[in-house]
Amino acid sequence: MPADANKAAAGDIGRLLRPRSIAIVGASEKPGALGNSVLLNLERLGFDGELHLVNPKREEIAGRRCVKSVEDLPLGIDAAVLAIPRAFVLDAIRGLAERGCGSVVIFSAGFAEAGDAGLEEQRQIGEIALKAGMIVEGPNCLGCVNFIDQIALTFVEAPTPKLGARRKGIAIVSQSGAMAAVLGSNLTDRDIGLSYSVSTGNEAASGVEDFVEYMIADKNTSVIAMIVEQFRNPARFLELAAKARRAKKPIVLLHPGKSTAAAESAATHTGAMAGDYSVMRTKVERAGVIVADTLEELGDIAEIAARCRQLPSGGCVVLTESGAFKALTLDLAEEIGLDLPKLTDANAPELRAAMPEFVAVSNPVDMTAQALVDPDMYRRVLSAAVGDKRFGSVVLAIIQTDHSTTDKKFPPIIDALGELKSSKPIIVTGIDEGGVVRKAYVKGVRRKGSAYFPTSDRAMRAIAKLSAYSGQDFSESRRKPLKARKALVAGVVPEFRAKEILGPLGVPFPKSKLARSKHEAIEAAKALGYPVVLKAQSAELSHKSDAGGVMVGLQSADEIASAWDKMQSSVTSYKPGLELDGILVESMGDRGVELIIGAKSEPGWGPVILAGFGGVQAELYQDVCLLSPDLTEAAIIGQLRQLKGARLLTGFRGSAPVDLEAVAEIISTIGRLMIGEPDIREIDLNPVVAYPKGKGAVALDALMLIARE
Amino acid sequence: MPADANKAAAGDIGRLLRPRSIAIVGASEKPGALGNSVLLNLERLGFDGELHLVNPKREEIAGRRCVKSVEDLPLGIDAAVLAIPRAFVLDAIRGLAERGCGSVVIFSAGFAEAGDAGLEEQRQIGEIALKAGMIVEGPNCLGCVNFIDQIALTFVEAPTPKLGARRKGIAIVSQSGAMAAVLGSNLTDRDIGLSYSVSTGNEAASGVEDFVEYMIADKNTSVIAMIVEQFRNPARFLELAAKARRAKKPIVLLHPGKSTAAAESAATHTGAMAGDYSVMRTKVERAGVIVADTLEELGDIAEIAARCRQLPSGGCVVLTESGAFKALTLDLAEEIGLDLPKLTDANAPELRAAMPEFVAVSNPVDMTAQALVDPDMYRRVLSAAVGDKRFGSVVLAIIQTDHSTTDKKFPPIIDALGELKSSKPIIVTGIDEGGVVRKAYVKGVRRKGSAYFPTSDRAMRAIAKLSAYSGQDFSESRRKPLKARKALVAGVVPEFRAKEILGPLGVPFPKSKLARSKHEAIEAAKALGYPVVLKAQSAELSHKSDAGGVMVGLQSADEIASAWDKMQSSVTSYKPGLELDGILVESMGDRGVELIIGAKSEPGWGPVILAGFGGVQAELYQDVCLLSPDLTEAAIIGQLRQLKGARLLTGFRGSAPVDLEAVAEIISTIGRLMIGEPDIREIDLNPVVAYPKGKGAVALDALMLIARE
Repeated sequence: MPADANKAAAGDIGRLLRPRSIAIVGASEKPGALGNSVLLNLERLGFDGELHLVNPKREEIAGRRCVKSVEDLPLGIDAAVLAIPRAFVLDAIRGLAERGCGSVVIFSAGFAEAGDAGLEEQRQIGEIALKAGMIVEGPNCLGCVNFIDQIALTFVEAPTPKLGARRKGIAIVSQSGAMAAVLGSNLTDRDIGLSYSVSTGNEAASGVEDFVEYMIADKNTSVIAMIVEQFRNPARFLELAAKARRAKKPIVLLHPGKSTAAAESAATHTGAMAGDYSVMRTKVERAGVIVADTLEELGDIAEIAARCRQLPSGGCVVLTESGAFKALTLDLAEEIGLDLPKLTDANAPELRAAMPEFVAVSNPVDMTAQALVDPDMYRRVLSAAVGDKRFGSVVLAIIQTDHSTTDKKFPPIIDALGELKSSKPIIVTGIDEGGVVRKAYVKGVRRKGSAYFPTSDRAMRAIAKLSAYSGQDFSESRRKPLKARKALVAGVVPEFRAKEILGPLGVPFPKSKLARSKHEAIEAAKALGYPVVLKAQSAELSHKSDAGGVMVGLQSADEIASAWDKMQSSVTSYKPGLELDGILVESMGDRGVELIIGAKSEPGWGPVILAGFGGVQAELYQDVCLLSPDLTEAAIIGQLRQLKGARLLTGFRGSAPVDLEAVAEIISTIGRLMIGEPDIREIDLNPVVAYPKGKGAVALDALMLIARE
Repeated sequence: MPADANKAAAGDIGRLLRPRSIAIVGASEKPGALGNSVLLNLERLGFDGELHLVNPKREEIAGRRCVKSVEDLPLGIDAAVLAIPRAFVLDAIRGLAERGCGSVVIFSAGFAEAGDAGLEEQRQIGEIALKAGMIVEGPNCLGCVNFIDQIALTFVEAPTPKLGARRKGIAIVSQSGAMAAVLGSNLTDRDIGLSYSVSTGNEAASGVEDFVEYMIADKNTSVIAMIVEQFRNPARFLELAAKARRAKKPIVLLHPGKSTAAAESAATHTGAMAGDYSVMRTKVERAGVIVADTLEELGDIAEIAARCRQLPSGGCVVLTESGAFKALTLDLAEEIGLDLPKLTDANAPELRAAMPEFVAVSNPVDMTAQALVDPDMYRRVLSAAVGDKRFGSVVLAIIQTDHSTTDKKFPPIIDALGELKSSKPIIVTGIDEGGVVRKAYVKGVRRKGSAYFPTSDRAMRAIAKLSAYSGQDFSESRRKPLKARKALVAGVVPEFRAKEILGPLGVPFPKSKLARSKHEAIEAAKALGYPVVLKAQSAELSHKSDAGGVMVGLQSADEIASAWDKMQSSVTSYKPGLELDGILVESMGDRGVELIIGAKSEPGWGPVILAGFGGVQAELYQDVCLLSPDLTEAAIIGQLRQLKGARLLTGFRGSAPVDLEAVAEIISTIGRLMIGEPDIREIDLNPVVAYPKGKGAVALDALMLIARE
């Protein structure tokens, strides 16, 4: 981990990715040796800059002179590749730093992921690099490839198709080297241009964030595809993601860790602690990152984003050739939340005119096998679809089955695509997996700016993600962050103090008074009016109900007196020696819909707000959502309406709709406070009782946790 | 629809699928004409039986003699293909029936799916066929292909690879012709043998059930892959499915209709009413059908079932080569419910011994890139995995990236597969999609009895479905169906009558008495003991709460008297003129966990039982399950434990576990009654209050609906 996790790596990434001078430390003649494969890769691709080889035992390798050690290298080499065993790495790093080397690639494993000693060595590498302003890729990585200048600092012998200097491609930025290689091979196989592929491994000094920053500025990169197990610098990544969004360079991310087992596995594998997946996802999506759920989907989303002139947005129309498939498509669309606007003869006259009468207008459209006898129908139907403002994407899902069929269908489709020159994405797909489609047809579709997918299911899944991204509301609340008006003292903040902090900021609570004696309690109740609740107060009593520290519905001075004694004795027997700060006397609120509103600040990621239904619904059905703290009230209400039990908020079984504005106001207040006071680790309002529209919402309990510095 | 929906189609399907004499009605010389394509297909495949052509305008086609009309055909032809317009179909059918033709294929559309006139014609076709004992495929179908004898009665020019007479293959039985063709092309492209492919279209006389029956008996068929939009004869299909399971011939089914939109679309497309998808799924899965969720999955499940000597069962082990991918795999396994038993050094000594020390034993295993330098590791690791009883399937997910990598990996993998001769399924997969894998390697893997999948995600999804099938408990309750001891009168059965029917059969209710006067009510309450509930009773008052027909917690004769009057007047004002059967006076039960138990009988499919949580949880979170009525109590309890809120049953927040045996007994009783009394359409027990273990469960309300004949 870099010494200062919020700073960018020192140094110039360009010296690693576009080096004019390279040293291979551990260069070798032995086939299969890493130091040999790197050399072969550079020679194969015709690297024409300076190339220096280091090998203590050889004078010469493959006709090139060798030096004995890094100390013998000239000053200021751009990039050095360490193809040497782990044990020699740290010394080599020191030597290279002294000679002003711009960047280093470390293949060896056995550092942070292998225990304390490795972790310490990795820390030292980071320190040296930071001081020297040297970029470090790795350790435990597969290196990097520059497809523009065709420079591969890797031992993997993968195809490296040149990306023309004026073209744009996908940059792969992955912690895992294997996954970078696999994704690169997959995208290359689909004939998609790549700009760079980088694997950052253990990230001793330079992390995915540094490379993303480079790719945002890079003129040859249009899309950034990432595979990350653990962001080491989340705050910086979030800033960069927002920047990438503004620059219209989509970042597509695959991140394991949804399951507990995967989170544990990632921790073992990378030597970094696993964070909370849902917090990560909430934060990166808010910043404009498109999160893929599988490797296949990562490639699919990246392909459409890279290939089509516009991103899919709004509704989608599916043009197909089978009635049964149409029904399957409707099932899938519902499952993945893809909007297929309904079409009828009346609302789609262009589509109606494009097809014979016996073909019904609908979405998906079942064109039947008619295009086999009337191939111009593809052009007419596509033209109607592209011209329809309801659609931000078009899927043409055809039956392929055999060459005689595809030979009839593809030529008119490719012609139509050429004629239409649609900037709206048109994805041509099979219904099966397209084993019988000639490569020339696939190429033809791509040349016209469209994508070809083996199945429409995959196209639809990718389109659903991209359309959601296009339609996302990125506006931020204009309201200012809040500062607490009282000093925040580290540790658990008990209810009465939390209410003293949150109340003045606008969080509504029932009226209450802290009593330090039975007499004070009775006086307080008289002032508040019966019935009242008594609640024991102490920072050391987080679960006061379990301790007998809550008594509700007290109706008289006598009841308070006896409750007071009982509560003191229950608390003492629950936690002997505990001195209460006092007992809170509080008005009883009316019943309403019970919600929970909470906030937590995840190290690195900052705060997220949790809101949803309380009690059984929260615990058994996880009917809660995570929200970014900077949402507008309208966006908050929009998210609450997505809860599974949302009908409880909008009027369930004849009950009145809930005061959602009041609930959103509490959430917004908590969010603004979490932004304004980074020392707050947690806030818990449980329950928050929401009343009918216009009647507000009240938090009955409050708990806070302030960071100990 | 066949005249008698519970009977098989008359006639011999063998005459359609293995004909020795064929007539093409509407034979043609014109390229692209249906009657020409059928002829070309038969000639291309070298059909050597009798071939008759019918064309009123031609003496001869392609050197073969033509007759003018079906009346001129010889008697007793096996199969006639109607490549003629819709208008001429019915007459041709009449003519063919008179001449004792064994079977007919009808391509034309425009029958049941096109309105009343078409529906009527289709009905007549069915009637003629049934009387004549003639098999009818279609109308609105693409015909059929026999891959064993290579006879194609279709106009689709798809590849028809011969299945050797001693080999076994997959039979495709689909309503949709397009989907049958697409699936056939897909499976053929994967080099899987097919036995037959049949599309049944509108099913005027012969349905998918008839063809499934044939395939179960067919010695060349090992797996049946189906695409069905609407079973026309569910009861018969369920019987056949159970038979197929006993014959160890898996049926894999793709059935759209999960979404409302898809169900509507299927109704339009096939001219049949859509049934309830979840009822269909509950029933067919209970009968042993494996339900696929996508077309891709249908092919994937069928492939593994057809190719591997054993079906996957129990746990799965994934052998891979990337740490990041391992984490992604854990995420996927959790999502799809695939069991990956945990492995450690201690519990997997064979695996430990098969790998170098620095490779950790776990599941998935991240073998790293070690096999590139030690290719024999594949053999050792696979051998350890295959020898481990915890695993019923093995996935070997390798990094492919480029030819130099796959050239190193595949030969030792294929050798290892050959040496191991595992009957346990081993699926070799890529991590990407395998664009760079030579076809010879894929073939090599298949020749050893393993499957090759482009991604491990797909393999895992198919394995999860097949393992669940292998582990399914098909045992049936040995308890006898129940008959009601009272006459069942058609219509809505009000609460007090439903309780009179269900109580004696063993469903527990609170004590109650029907009162026909205020005086009777007070006497009843005295006998039952206070407090009591009053509930208005009438078959015309299904929602008695809404009508003010329920009053709870009555404590005295006075309260009953005033409640009686109030209830009479509320009911009258809710439904003027309604005469109550009386008012039920019932003991108040204690509070407990509220469940609902219901049953309904879906036309054709028979009864299913619904059980789950009541109130908000049922309505907002759909936390209910559908059960087959013949489950054992143990299986019922197993299903209840799968509910999302199951913790409410097993002791939530310190409450006592619920009496699950008592709940299961009620469900079993309702199930046995639904089987014994097919006239019962619906039973509703809502709520059923479940008490702590040993304290039983009580149904507070009951409603039944009896079919009107």
